[in-house]
Amino acid sequence: MPLFTEKASSWRDLRVLPSFAPALPRLSQEFAPPKDGIERYEVVIVGAGPAGLMLHLLLSRYGLSDQSLLCIDSKSATLKSGQADGVQPRTLEVFKTLGISNEIESEACQMWEFAFWNASDDPAKVIERRSIVPEVIPPARFPYEATIHQGRIERIMETDLLRYSQRGVQRNTTLVSLQIDEQGDPEFPVLAEIEVEGVRRAVRTKHLVGADGAHSVVRKSVGLSLEGQSLDHIWGVVDLVVDTNFPDIRRRCALHSSAGSAMVIPRERINTGEYLTRIYIQIPGLVEPGSADSDADLKKDAKGKRSEVTLAGILKQVQDVFAPYYIRPRGEDVIDWWAAYQIGQRVCPEFIVRDSAGLGRVFIVGDACHTHSPKAGQGMNVSMMDSYNLAWKLAYHLHGLTPSSSNQGRPSPLLETYHTERHSNAVKLIDYDRKFSGGFSDKVGTAESKSGLSHAEFVDLFNSGCGFTSGAGVEYDESVLVDRSSVVASSSIITGDDFLSGILRTGRRLLNVKLKRFADGWHRDIQDDLASTGRSRLVLLLSDDLLNPDGISANVINAVATLIEQYPASLVEQIIIHPRLSGEITWDNIPASVKQQAEMSFYSGYDLDDAYRIYGVDPSRGALLAVRPDGYVGIIAELSDVARVDAYLSRIIARAT
Amino acid sequence: MPLFTEKASSWRDLRVLPSFAPALPRLSQEFAPPKDGIERYEVVIVGAGPAGLMLHLLLSRYGLSDQSLLCIDSKSATLKSGQADGVQPRTLEVFKTLGISNEIESEACQMWEFAFWNASDDPAKVIERRSIVPEVIPPARFPYEATIHQGRIERIMETDLLRYSQRGVQRNTTLVSLQIDEQGDPEFPVLAEIEVEGVRRAVRTKHLVGADGAHSVVRKSVGLSLEGQSLDHIWGVVDLVVDTNFPDIRRRCALHSSAGSAMVIPRERINTGEYLTRIYIQIPGLVEPGSADSDADLKKDAKGKRSEVTLAGILKQVQDVFAPYYIRPRGEDVIDWWAAYQIGQRVCPEFIVRDSAGLGRVFIVGDACHTHSPKAGQGMNVSMMDSYNLAWKLAYHLHGLTPSSSNQGRPSPLLETYHTERHSNAVKLIDYDRKFSGGFSDKVGTAESKSGLSHAEFVDLFNSGCGFTSGAGVEYDESVLVDRSSVVASSSIITGDDFLSGILRTGRRLLNVKLKRFADGWHRDIQDDLASTGRSRLVLLLSDDLLNPDGISANVINAVATLIEQYPASLVEQIIIHPRLSGEITWDNIPASVKQQAEMSFYSGYDLDDAYRIYGVDPSRGALLAVRPDGYVGIIAELSDVARVDAYLSRIIARAT
Repeated sequence: MPLFTEKASSWRDLRVLPSFAPALPRLSQEFAPPKDGIERYEVVIVGAGPAGLMLHLLLSRYGLSDQSLLCIDSKSATLKSGQADGVQPRTLEVFKTLGISNEIESEACQMWEFAFWNASDDPAKVIERRSIVPEVIPPARFPYEATIHQGRIERIMETDLLRYSQRGVQRNTTLVSLQIDEQGDPEFPVLAEIEVEGVRRAVRTKHLVGADGAHSVVRKSVGLSLEGQSLDHIWGVVDLVVDTNFPDIRRRCALHSSAGSAMVIPRERINTGEYLTRIYIQIPGLVEPGSADSDADLKKDAKGKRSEVTLAGILKQVQDVFAPYYIRPRGEDVIDWWAAYQIGQRVCPEFIVRDSAGLGRVFIVGDACHTHSPKAGQGMNVSMMDSYNLAWKLAYHLHGLTPSSSNQGRPSPLLETYHTERHSNAVKLIDYDRKFSGGFSDKVGTAESKSGLSHAEFVDLFNSGCGFTSGAGVEYDESVLVDRSSVVASSSIITGDDFLSGILRTGRRLLNVKLKRFADGWHRDIQDDLASTGRSRLVLLLSDDLLNPDGISANVINAVATLIEQYPASLVEQIIIHPRLSGEITWDNIPASVKQQAEMSFYSGYDLDDAYRIYGVDPSRGALLAVRPDGYVGIIAELSDVARVDAYLSRIIARAT
Repeated sequence: MPLFTEKASSWRDLRVLPSFAPALPRLSQEFAPPKDGIERYEVVIVGAGPAGLMLHLLLSRYGLSDQSLLCIDSKSATLKSGQADGVQPRTLEVFKTLGISNEIESEACQMWEFAFWNASDDPAKVIERRSIVPEVIPPARFPYEATIHQGRIERIMETDLLRYSQRGVQRNTTLVSLQIDEQGDPEFPVLAEIEVEGVRRAVRTKHLVGADGAHSVVRKSVGLSLEGQSLDHIWGVVDLVVDTNFPDIRRRCALHSSAGSAMVIPRERINTGEYLTRIYIQIPGLVEPGSADSDADLKKDAKGKRSEVTLAGILKQVQDVFAPYYIRPRGEDVIDWWAAYQIGQRVCPEFIVRDSAGLGRVFIVGDACHTHSPKAGQGMNVSMMDSYNLAWKLAYHLHGLTPSSSNQGRPSPLLETYHTERHSNAVKLIDYDRKFSGGFSDKVGTAESKSGLSHAEFVDLFNSGCGFTSGAGVEYDESVLVDRSSVVASSSIITGDDFLSGILRTGRRLLNVKLKRFADGWHRDIQDDLASTGRSRLVLLLSDDLLNPDGISANVINAVATLIEQYPASLVEQIIIHPRLSGEITWDNIPASVKQQAEMSFYSGYDLDDAYRIYGVDPSRGALLAVRPDGYVGIIAELSDVARVDAYLSRIIARAT
């Protein structure tokens, strides 16, 4: 179409770029450390694995500049030695809210099913498939577990990070030592010594986060340690392209044969067009905790076993467990990676180290505070979710967005919830992993079983754990962020208790539902309105009296419109959903603030999914929710009870000044 | 999980990168032009707008190196002045098969609905909404039209291009002249003169593609011109953030008020958090083709009108047409772009210029061979689809993959189909656009209407055109690529004729269906197995006798397994679908070649979508299809008629040597 007149604004050129997430508002003073030659930050992150990168990415998106935020890593390039490969449904939901899930959705392997194989009573069969169950039981936006090389997850996060941070991760940089030195500089009490290519220098920071793995220097420097049983059976693990006639090689499998146990994790397609498979295999022989007197003896015992594990031995044992099926590498050079490991379940009793006034200064995340077996595919996920939980709290604190953050020298109730929420989650993980990985190593369903688990009980263990392992069923306890009293009060608001299926519950993430937008008829996912931009949301599930200008719905719309203006601009967003009504809506027969404030987040809750039924809300009554920046429901109130929701928010968010 | 033994292969490091599309095999000699100081290519592309970039990207993915392929553009950077903004469902499907749809899916505006507004009989209302219809009527993988800045589409393609081409587009480079000079160099007969920053140089190439827009130098150099009516009403167009109480501002709208006509195109959200809107507005006053004696007079007349169009005038007219609603820019600096245009419908009679032997040497694509109004949102889409149609044919020809391509100095039946398919498509587009944009400029539904179209007829025109404008209903005529004789023969194979809804039809794209994969239970889209890698596919819709080892299904599986080996390795892929069967499938009770050749493309056709019903295939009988590399069905045969399909393929693809 040739034009004869045309005029474009200069900023139109910027429209070719992908969108950027809007930074959080900042009520505290801009970060401007004294120019006295001392290197100072607001946050230093040690370690750029999945947990460290996730934290760096989030804080950069929330608005922490390279001047205020430093992330160091001792390695010289994106980690290529990481061995995790599972991305759980909840992690995918979070990646989606960051706009970085696409490559995983398109190119990861999707595990949809889990097959259970046991020794067969029929000697000719040797082993047989007992059942196939869905890999993910509870409803989730992504009904599968994705598997893909950890290095790729990191590369995806780092690529996005570099849109927000010019420096990115500062590599080849090691943490040497760390202490809290309030005398030296009360505002920047964390004193770290780092080494960059042989040169040591001191760095001061308000907060430091240890994302430096199971052997965390941060954790050791502050005198914490992982507690719990440290050793377990020896397992081998190998990533390869297989040649096999085992029929379920493209399903996740648990195998218990008389020769031992194995787990199959189908993996992504690689550039040769072939598909990777990961196999976990139990190495025969035991390092029995009971047979040694101390941890030191156990370690010595383990050391003895260590030299025995070889690739050939792993492949031999795989063949034995899978017999009578053949299973072998498909040609030369198809072994991507192999390893042997031996690990129990350990957790650090404290995830936060505080200054003398009780304010959290050092935080540990990921493997630095919990280690466990890889069997349930949790490691990378739980680690990233630690950071996802911590990031917005740190940003709110530093940006002066919390009621307490203007009070230096006072504890921060918001920051404290990082420990209470994630430590308790880690303990649940450890407990589950102990049972599940124990079941794996055990000869379940046979007379030799030590746990006495039957096959059915083992499958049940997987199924019941699915809410937790998918991430979709994580539930945080009562705190300043989780108003459990309102749950009691709201017992009559919410009908049902199948929280995994979507029934509203404070402390759980809001399940995705499909909604039809009033303004344009667009079929939207509610989670797309819960972007990880650090914003808090009020979800108004209106009642069916919306068309009555004096009804409860109209009143709450007006009250919420006023409430939002009490808080810093853009910080509290609203999502307004209506049930089936007796008449047709127009912009003119509902309160004007809907179009003014929520034109693009006003939805029908019944045209697509039946949101009211899924959430357990009575359309004649409605409900009012606050959803935290990380997507968890903070409070559920009567639709009319805006005051209660205001009180909840005011405990977390500073009023606009 | 700490490891005590670990070993990784070096190639594992590459696994952090996104996947690369596998190049096409090459049977012809590697490109190695004589080293005599003359610059030679296999393909030169002139122009890097959407059509040129799409062609460059595809040819690079198919395996043409920077040495063999050059794309020049006169501008210095990614085009930022492009004014197209609509991405149609079929274009999205194609982007998806290239793995580059994600950003559009996530960040473009999705138009789901089209509202029609007309003058009201009620004087108080002035205008009123008559109806809302879905924006996309036929089933498609993406049931909406996406709108987003053209520069962003180009940036997305260019970013992906740079993964395959080191040079990328050679910018600041202009085509000066062009001729076919067979005497000078019979193998590289296309002689072009280009100018790079003031320096001219000669370039020879086997083929040259003009993607250089409506004023194409390529087209003019080879003596072709656009034919048809060139002038129409004058329209203004403006991209801005609006402040309005017009209720359908987030829907696509056609407005016919007594003050004139307008079209609303809702656009993407921008970084301010606001939403763009595009408004097309008819400028009062006419340039009547009937009132002038010649095209030259018309152009002069138009020139007179030109100086009258201003932004203020456009905004004033917008306000008049939308009255009684107010509509105005939301604050200062919210006008992104505005323009005035005046254009009719023109098409070039030939899309190919041949050498003396009849082999296509110069091709024109996109605006260079068809121009029309922007009303139906077709420009960018049809242009890119021209390249999508041409690219694999050129690559097959150059890689020696066609039966004729080893015969230099002979016409290529495959290349000829570029003209027959895309010229006839352009003519259909022009015809539709003439009616549709005419209806826009006309006062439909009133006594003043010139076309005599009633409102209902105008809506019908949109609805019936939707198959074409969505791209989902494009149909190519019979040719070496479209076996229409088999359609006649197969009249009893395929039941139904609602091709838009998915009933199989040669010459149309295969509708996406959801299939459950046997190997792993993964819920897949069949179009994800139709990746734009230049491969041809056989789709086996098996009959319900699959479990009978002597049945038709088992026989066709074995015959196809043999057939595929006749063709160059990897070039013909298979997708095997089975209907509901009387017993359970295991890998052991079906032919072994399914697992050997199609383990990851063997599907249940009934667990998710009912593929047989959607495609109109009787499960007791089945069908055998060939799908072209661009996703169009080439032949539909009886399941047992492998010979007919072999004959079809052998007309297009060279046998393996």
